[in-house]
Amino acid sequence: MDIGILGTGMVGYTIGTKLVQLGHNIKMGSRTGENEKTEAFVRTNEGRGTAGTFEDAAAFGEIVFNCTSGGASLHALKMAGEHNLNGKILVDVANPLDFSKGRPPILIPEYCNTTSLGEEIQKKYPLVKVVKTFNTMNCNLMVKPDLVPGEHDIFICGDDSVAKAKIIKDILHPIGWHGPIDLGGITAARSMEMILPLWINITGLYQTPNFNFKIVR
Amino acid sequence: MDIGILGTGMVGYTIGTKLVQLGHNIKMGSRTGENEKTEAFVRTNEGRGTAGTFEDAAAFGEIVFNCTSGGASLHALKMAGEHNLNGKILVDVANPLDFSKGRPPILIPEYCNTTSLGEEIQKKYPLVKVVKTFNTMNCNLMVKPDLVPGEHDIFICGDDSVAKAKIIKDILHPIGWHGPIDLGGITAARSMEMILPLWINITGLYQTPNFNFKIVR
Repeated sequence: MDIGILGTGMVGYTIGTKLVQLGHNIKMGSRTGENEKTEAFVRTNEGRGTAGTFEDAAAFGEIVFNCTSGGASLHALKMAGEHNLNGKILVDVANPLDFSKGRPPILIPEYCNTTSLGEEIQKKYPLVKVVKTFNTMNCNLMVKPDLVPGEHDIFICGDDSVAKAKIIKDILHPIGWHGPIDLGGITAARSMEMILPLWINITGLYQTPNFNFKIVR
Repeated sequence: MDIGILGTGMVGYTIGTKLVQLGHNIKMGSRTGENEKTEAFVRTNEGRGTAGTFEDAAAFGEIVFNCTSGGASLHALKMAGEHNLNGKILVDVANPLDFSKGRPPILIPEYCNTTSLGEEIQKKYPLVKVVKTFNTMNCNLMVKPDLVPGEHDIFICGDDSVAKAKIIKDILHPIGWHGPIDLGGITAARSMEMILPLWINITGLYQTPNFNFKIVR
């Protein structure tokens, strides 16, 4: 499958690398279209990995991943172009963290509690099928569930059931994420984003991002 | 130990009943000092269970539990009286849920993200040792960890380490909660309160409140 990735930071790079390994063709998209990280990505994944602008990556992908930082996501999507996104699945991995007041970060207030980044993206792009997942863990765990031993959970939500089913079957299952917890429509994105403060606290407490949440019942 | 419980709803009733079983003397405190629930509590726990106003319960307890609804907590504490609380441990079990906009509830915005109910109580009552715990689960699970099989976690936070250690030793351990995850100072209360939206979504999904979070690593 041709997949576009918006954001060439650690998250985008890690997911892009894994998706190449799974046989997909990946175009990494950034603001400028080229930077040290995308050059390394293209060199390492020759033949299957390319790079371009946000617009290039969105136009290229049948599926598009939002791996930009949450505060910049709406701007990046605007640069990607609505016509390049409409009708497609957008996998929203981003968290609207605000580091401007220092650490630990808060959530950006306009994306918190009564709404969320996932919801705001869906509102702004009603013809895009927004699927929120992956955002409740470190990027290395996203692509390698057994980095944390035993059973633990990944969450997913989104208004389009067919889109969620496709992401589960074509992305989560091949990576090794079985039985994701489907929280329902995109409004559940707020509950997935609001556990980030706890995630951050626990990362600090254990001095490692290699842990995950599990729902025990 | 003499323990005062503010709030005679399901949470206060359940915790109070368990604490009586553990050998403590409990005074349930409510706005009016008497209602059907406190009468039942006193009758059921004759000799160890009494009831009174918020003020009575706070004056009675060496430790005081805040089991009021989050939106009413500061008012209840005001009625309880600062002089009845100062120097004591206040175990804050409350969640600042706002059902006024329908279900699922949001968090009351003035207690969310940049602060929390736990923090606001601590700010308002600097001489009270606020310990936040128990708030991330259903009240039946609070007092009976094996209601959910296997291992799962309870969180705790608060600025006063001695107060936390006492609650762990005298309340959590006797109930059966071992190895609580100590998230640090009271500012961590925001991360504990902000997972409530996820808790509520999962309760709806599984149609049961009998589940819990576990941190797997």
